[in-house]
Amino acid sequence: MARQRGSGAVGLRVVRPVRLARADRRADLLDAATHLIVTEGVEAVSMESVADRAGVSRPLVYKHFGNRSDILVALFRREAERLHSEIAAEVRAAQGLEATYRALVRGSIKASSQSGPLFAALRSAGAWNSELRREREARDRRTVRFFADITSAEFGIPAAKAEAASAMLLTAIESVLVQWRTRQTGANAGLLEETYLDIILGGLERMAERAKTGSVAVYR
Amino acid sequence: MARQRGSGAVGLRVVRPVRLARADRRADLLDAATHLIVTEGVEAVSMESVADRAGVSRPLVYKHFGNRSDILVALFRREAERLHSEIAAEVRAAQGLEATYRALVRGSIKASSQSGPLFAALRSAGAWNSELRREREARDRRTVRFFADITSAEFGIPAAKAEAASAMLLTAIESVLVQWRTRQTGANAGLLEETYLDIILGGLERMAERAKTGSVAVYR
Repeated sequence: MARQRGSGAVGLRVVRPVRLARADRRADLLDAATHLIVTEGVEAVSMESVADRAGVSRPLVYKHFGNRSDILVALFRREAERLHSEIAAEVRAAQGLEATYRALVRGSIKASSQSGPLFAALRSAGAWNSELRREREARDRRTVRFFADITSAEFGIPAAKAEAASAMLLTAIESVLVQWRTRQTGANAGLLEETYLDIILGGLERMAERAKTGSVAVYR
Repeated sequence: MARQRGSGAVGLRVVRPVRLARADRRADLLDAATHLIVTEGVEAVSMESVADRAGVSRPLVYKHFGNRSDILVALFRREAERLHSEIAAEVRAAQGLEATYRALVRGSIKASSQSGPLFAALRSAGAWNSELRREREARDRRTVRFFADITSAEFGIPAAKAEAASAMLLTAIESVLVQWRTRQTGANAGLLEETYLDIILGGLERMAERAKTGSVAVYR
């Protein structure tokens, strides 16, 4: 990770020996911005400081990003997608609904511990916008469908109700994370996970009972 | 509600015969802003249009609000507090946890139907700020404690778990409202209410079982 610092102020004259592919260069610039946020705070991010940190010229940064705000939004998007992919991989590897929700809540708490400060910094700098919100909503809709399918299959709950319940239960994880951030101890993580799982399993069992009773009534 | 329109453009010369108390005048100005938003959209709100609509001089509006943004924030605060009071009154009148949550979800859906567009307009105009967020969080904390107390008393769930669960279940109502807004039919309201109540009651019953088992283990 050690990287030579370019001389930012006279960055126009810095030429790197190896030309990186466009995507790699972009990733490199976002890594530089992340380093600046983590070490100095989000105010430290500028076209110049990112160029300096990445050891490239300022015009090169402008080839990838229109302005500072573009960098912060791109970083927010990259981190959100990365976290989603990481959690999704763990969630998909789990077997059964209980283990799947458990993987989700554990992954979310872990992600919140690791990336919470970065997201908070990016949000405070106004990097959260309506486009990112729409992207998040699309990811959330896919997550709801994924959990609703397992819920229907495992609990025999009709699709519409399984989807409604899954959306509510997945929204509740926001509260798990808020509560986690106020007290980041192992004991609290355990209490929150058990409480969350009890609500899910108890709630879905009750819905399954109702679905069974409903079917009987229909076929009588 | 018929009110004479003052001549806004030459509003400096308009003098109303009756002087209203400061709070009444302020309420009057916010009513005027609400009317403008509902009939013409939030862009129609300006110091001048509010003065015009309320039939007062522009300087009088400036005595109450520093600028247009202050009006929108004050309106957001007033509506949020009003809705909270309305729902809280219905919630407090209910007997037992099930009826209490039912009052909450019904009141919230009703409020969302009636005031959703106004809040959406105010949000889009940037009237949502960190101070309003903190006020909302304080109200939410009181709501969580209120529901947690009933949960402990009725289900015998220890305070820490009752509070954690109540916070999660109350957060889930956000999802109820999102789902309600996408399909505003009586059938959908019914499905959402039943699903939400099933999750709550099934989840808390499971927690109550665990609490009982836990007590037995402790006293053995």
